Amino acid sequence: MMDGMAEISLESEERVIIVGVGLIGGSVAAAVRRRNPTCDVIGIGRCEKRLQAAADAGLLTDWSTEVASSTLAGRCVVVVCLPVHLIAGQVCQIAELATGDVLITDAGSVKSVICDAVNSHPRASRIFVGAHPIAGGEQGGFEHADSELFEDKVCVITENDSAPALPLLAGRTRQFWRQLGCRIVDMTAREHDRVLALTSHLPHLMAAVTATVVGSDNLPLTGSGFRDATRIAAGDAALWTAIMAGNRSCIVEAIGRAEEELALYRTALEQQDDDRLLTLLAAAEKCRRKLTS
Amino acid sequence: MMDGMAEISLESEERVIIVGVGLIGGSVAAAVRRRNPTCDVIGIGRCEKRLQAAADAGLLTDWSTEVASSTLAGRCVVVVCLPVHLIAGQVCQIAELATGDVLITDAGSVKSVICDAVNSHPRASRIFVGAHPIAGGEQGGFEHADSELFEDKVCVITENDSAPALPLLAGRTRQFWRQLGCRIVDMTAREHDRVLALTSHLPHLMAAVTATVVGSDNLPLTGSGFRDATRIAAGDAALWTAIMAGNRSCIVEAIGRAEEELALYRTALEQQDDDRLLTLLAAAEKCRRKLTS
Repeated sequence: MMDGMAEISLESEERVIIVGVGLIGGSVAAAVRRRNPTCDVIGIGRCEKRLQAAADAGLLTDWSTEVASSTLAGRCVVVVCLPVHLIAGQVCQIAELATGDVLITDAGSVKSVICDAVNSHPRASRIFVGAHPIAGGEQGGFEHADSELFEDKVCVITENDSAPALPLLAGRTRQFWRQLGCRIVDMTAREHDRVLALTSHLPHLMAAVTATVVGSDNLPLTGSGFRDATRIAAGDAALWTAIMAGNRSCIVEAIGRAEEELALYRTALEQQDDDRLLTLLAAAEKCRRKLTS
Repeated sequence: MMDGMAEISLESEERVIIVGVGLIGGSVAAAVRRRNPTCDVIGIGRCEKRLQAAADAGLLTDWSTEVASSTLAGRCVVVVCLPVHLIAGQVCQIAELATGDVLITDAGSVKSVICDAVNSHPRASRIFVGAHPIAGGEQGGFEHADSELFEDKVCVITENDSAPALPLLAGRTRQFWRQLGCRIVDMTAREHDRVLALTSHLPHLMAAVTATVVGSDNLPLTGSGFRDATRIAAGDAALWTAIMAGNRSCIVEAIGRAEEELALYRTALEQQDDDRLLTLLAAAEKCRRKLTS
């Protein structure tokens, strides 16, 4: 029943335009292609060779190095899957060209800077609904695209509360991401950024610190624990710099909390207070075990 | 050829006695049983019911709640797989009872406190060679034992340099762990503890801090990155308290280095120095990528 409804809705979109065909953009393409093989999926990117390769891999039905007004006619969804610092500019540019019943959404890991910039653009603010599917991997490029990447993953939708004409569009956005397999969670952009600083951006920094401090010479004496704990630190540094820079104040606050907590461990060790050490580790164990239970 | 040599050597041991039949002890038992089905594998523990269950699972050929002198006759290897704070005391107690050609080794994650305590015991110091197979998991208990747990894992051997009669015994210890699948690395106990503070103990603390700081309410918005980065924080808090307390000064030093590195990220974010941020993240990315390449 739900599947039936979902299919009808994705079919009601004439085409899906994906701006930035990397891991996320490629996976959106793959997911749309798998769920609705008759829907046009058009990739927009910089490099013709890469776009043709993505088409050859079956991800795209067509591609272009620029968005044309004719592509933005009729009923279509544009999904901007660029690095976060490029999203708002691209959304506004596309909004200028849109003539049809166009919905623009994105997959950026930060939301406030993007939504604030889009909201200051009258035309873009009326057709953009921000989204963040919490899915990914440390290996970039459409070669790692996966049509099931979004299956059962949370997608945060940041409905634009300052643009009252949007509820209908927000519903269409929710439906779009739900059809790719996502579970929808509605949040404000600011709340999203505060929480993601703790659930994603701080963990990345902690993994990066752990990977740097260990030193290359000691890598042979690492085990599976280190491997898992630092896996995300292998993610693309430029992409993560843009994410961190796009959520500066929340991340600085999260780092402050981590510094306080780490100091508690240091003090307990220095003062030989093993009861305190046990209490700290037990709290962490309890918190982490909630995730698997 | 190597396999043949290995088999002959494990067969030359009349029995393997495992003190503490949890994840590691159970996996040692499983590995010995698989590689030499005719070798006696005797489990020593506190709880009769658990020991019988481990025997029923095929891990042990016999068990007891205490080590008897008669068990320690002939040529045998004792592997002490207890929490680290209990290892040295148990090694000395077993050494007092040993009458045959007995080798005692262990699987503790810290080495200096154990080796120092054993070296102060004249009898124990002559028959003990410390070991640390770098393998494990956050799920304890012999139910998770795996005969392949040690396959291709590093096992650090800390040959006792203050006891000159040991080289032969150290060779026998290397051979024992090699037969379970390990790659042997020789180190002093002090060097082991300094390196493991960085490769294992600090990563555990960083994961614990990350898991605690996130807060339970935010867990639904975590992704696979958070899941991997904090997995080890689900490890048993009491076991890890003993490990941390057994390597205090090295871990405090490692925390200091992590605090310095984390402060570099905070400062770069506060000062909006994105070039610096990129440099830091790129260094971490490069370091972590060495592990998979």
